[in-house]
Amino acid sequence: MRVLTFLSDFGSRSPYPAAMKGAAAAYCDAAFVDLSHDVSPLDVREGAYLLWSAAPAFPAGTVHCAVVDPGVGTARAALAVASGGQTLVGPDNGLLMPAARRLGSPTVFRLAAPAYWRAPVSPTFHGRDIFAPAAAHLAAGAPIEALGLPAEAYVDLVFPTGRRDGRCLRGEVLWVDAFGNLITTIPGDLLGGLAAARRLVVDAGAATLEASVARTFGDVARGQAAVLVGSDGVLEVALNGESLAARTGAGPGAPVRISPA
Amino acid sequence: MRVLTFLSDFGSRSPYPAAMKGAAAAYCDAAFVDLSHDVSPLDVREGAYLLWSAAPAFPAGTVHCAVVDPGVGTARAALAVASGGQTLVGPDNGLLMPAARRLGSPTVFRLAAPAYWRAPVSPTFHGRDIFAPAAAHLAAGAPIEALGLPAEAYVDLVFPTGRRDGRCLRGEVLWVDAFGNLITTIPGDLLGGLAAARRLVVDAGAATLEASVARTFGDVARGQAAVLVGSDGVLEVALNGESLAARTGAGPGAPVRISPA
Amino acid sequence: MRVLTFLSDFGSRSPYPAAMKGAAAAYCDAAFVDLSHDVSPLDVREGAYLLWSAAPAFPAGTVHCAVVDPGVGTARAALAVASGGQTLVGPDNGLLMPAARRLGSPTVFRLAAPAYWRAPVSPTFHGRDIFAPAAAHLAAGAPIEALGLPAEAYVDLVFPTGRRDGRCLRGEVLWVDAFGNLITTIPGDLLGGLAAARRLVVDAGAATLEASVARTFGDVARGQAAVLVGSDGVLEVALNGESLAARTGAGPGAPVRISPA
Repeated sequence: MRVLTFLSDFGSRSPYPAAMKGAAAAYCDAAFVDLSHDVSPLDVREGAYLLWSAAPAFPAGTVHCAVVDPGVGTARAALAVASGGQTLVGPDNGLLMPAARRLGSPTVFRLAAPAYWRAPVSPTFHGRDIFAPAAAHLAAGAPIEALGLPAEAYVDLVFPTGRRDGRCLRGEVLWVDAFGNLITTIPGDLLGGLAAARRLVVDAGAATLEASVARTFGDVARGQAAVLVGSDGVLEVALNGESLAARTGAGPGAPVRISPA
Repeated sequence: MRVLTFLSDFGSRSPYPAAMKGAAAAYCDAAFVDLSHDVSPLDVREGAYLLWSAAPAFPAGTVHCAVVDPGVGTARAALAVASGGQTLVGPDNGLLMPAARRLGSPTVFRLAAPAYWRAPVSPTFHGRDIFAPAAAHLAAGAPIEALGLPAEAYVDLVFPTGRRDGRCLRGEVLWVDAFGNLITTIPGDLLGGLAAARRLVVDAGAATLEASVARTFGDVARGQAAVLVGSDGVLEVALNGESLAARTGAGPGAPVRISPA
Repeated sequence: MRVLTFLSDFGSRSPYPAAMKGAAAAYCDAAFVDLSHDVSPLDVREGAYLLWSAAPAFPAGTVHCAVVDPGVGTARAALAVASGGQTLVGPDNGLLMPAARRLGSPTVFRLAAPAYWRAPVSPTFHGRDIFAPAAAHLAAGAPIEALGLPAEAYVDLVFPTGRRDGRCLRGEVLWVDAFGNLITTIPGDLLGGLAAARRLVVDAGAATLEASVARTFGDVARGQAAVLVGSDGVLEVALNGESLAARTGAGPGAPVRISPA
């Protein structure tokens, strides 16, 4: 069975995620999976991060319906993006692009065939009336070329990439997980250059702390800090058993600097 | 595949939503969809609103299992309501009725056949032991007449309906969404009478603000207020990119008055 | 269709629950059910409680993938536990054992066949790379003996059991539900010894209150306290229509004493 995932900023207290799934159920028999509906309201970058993180774990054929859409009902386009055997459907505001690039080589279509939508289309709820029905038709096997036309241009969104700067690594916080770990923009393979130094100094937001290079959280003592290559291939800074975000106050966008002690 | 949705006030931290689905899985192969499990505890009206909002997007054949049930285990009846090709199952406290009326002409049955329940029935968890199994049997194709008897009476719940009052529209806040938009009780077609006035004054709770008539949120500048017909056909008042609920303090039940500027 | 449930402390704002389901979808066609992803971070006992509460409602053949895993990537083992026709998959830290014992007589295997995992295995995300793929293979019908070897030892976790102490019952709070009801460790069948006393005194945390023996919440007047046998067979203390947890401040682990008035 094909998988159809749903991502939104509608909130899990809201009826709108279910309305999207109801609209999709009219057109396909896919297995529905919630990616998350608790994206911070209108935060396209956060939604893009979640999609970028989760999409690579899904099998070929998966369709992702993602709706963080401050421009709903305006002139912004609606997209379907094929990449690496998966398809992403959502607004043309950059939301889909980091995941699409991570999956492979994106081919971007602009949705243009109302026959694959729900009628009438509410100008304030394209998730229910355009994106979910289009995604469902794709999950049911409709060819992407039937739903739209190749997009001549689209809005891109590129996460910043951390870098080496002399003996230091510099980047920023990309996301804070439920444990208070700081997921950074620094590629994991840059850690090799620092690995000779078993002790590091991490500056995150306004805080400075000592940390060890580690494979996993439990490699350091409780309450101690570790720098490790996380499950998405970027560096993470973590306290074993505690929230580093709570201790440092560092959130998404905060600068991170990792240097030898 | 038939769709079976679940709504409750059990909370997404709770094991009870999963227990309902486990009980249902014993009797059907339906696609399970969560409507929400974060209804405010015991708030029948809020649950009724969510069901009313989401149900119309689902295809014929869908069964909704809804449990906001302050009277669980007391003499209150258990209902199955057929309407517009869908079926709603839940306690007899009004929870199902706004959605049932919106879907079509409700036929109300009182569940009376323990053969379609889980045994033994806990007096504190009819969601797991009565509603979910009954809903699952309906999703598997059991005729509603097999599960119960026509109800001679039932508890109704009717949302208040906003109205025109001279040159003004008056109603109240029905729900506040995750963006802080105020969904009101005022029917969208009443806006026509005010549309000649491009500028409106909105009184919501204790606050007064100027607003424009709009099709969608992004039709007004960031931070500006819009009055628009929302995706459920009632008037919504929104700030583009900000929470109007946070600015006005207006929540469900707060009076709303919309008048020409 | 087989059911595959997912439990974690990753948070419903997180991409990690979806990544687990994506990894599972590659290997099975099961119906996915979320048990909860909002377990308090690293709280193995809370996760074990949720699994213990929900698992008995699921049909034979169900597989539960449970990940509350402070020791991810360290030397702790990965387990699959067969019991009562269901199978539980997760880390060897006690998480699975209360549910497994409640379901029947557990047979414990240590996962040892990387052919049933996702490669490469991230040392920080065994949920995606070991537990979900293994659980999916089990849901697809792979024999548990193919995935692992009988475990010679494993970490156990036993909830404390309340007891009779003279004319009183003593135990502790096991969980607080969304309504603020206190679910205790006191077996429901001990209530019989007190039932002659229609009025009870409950000491919970630092608070003392009078309560009635009841079948369900609504058997007492609004704002009054009830002691009843809950849907999991243990005693619960509840206020009708209000949060007892908010009134008493009692949370998991707080002592509870129930005595005749």
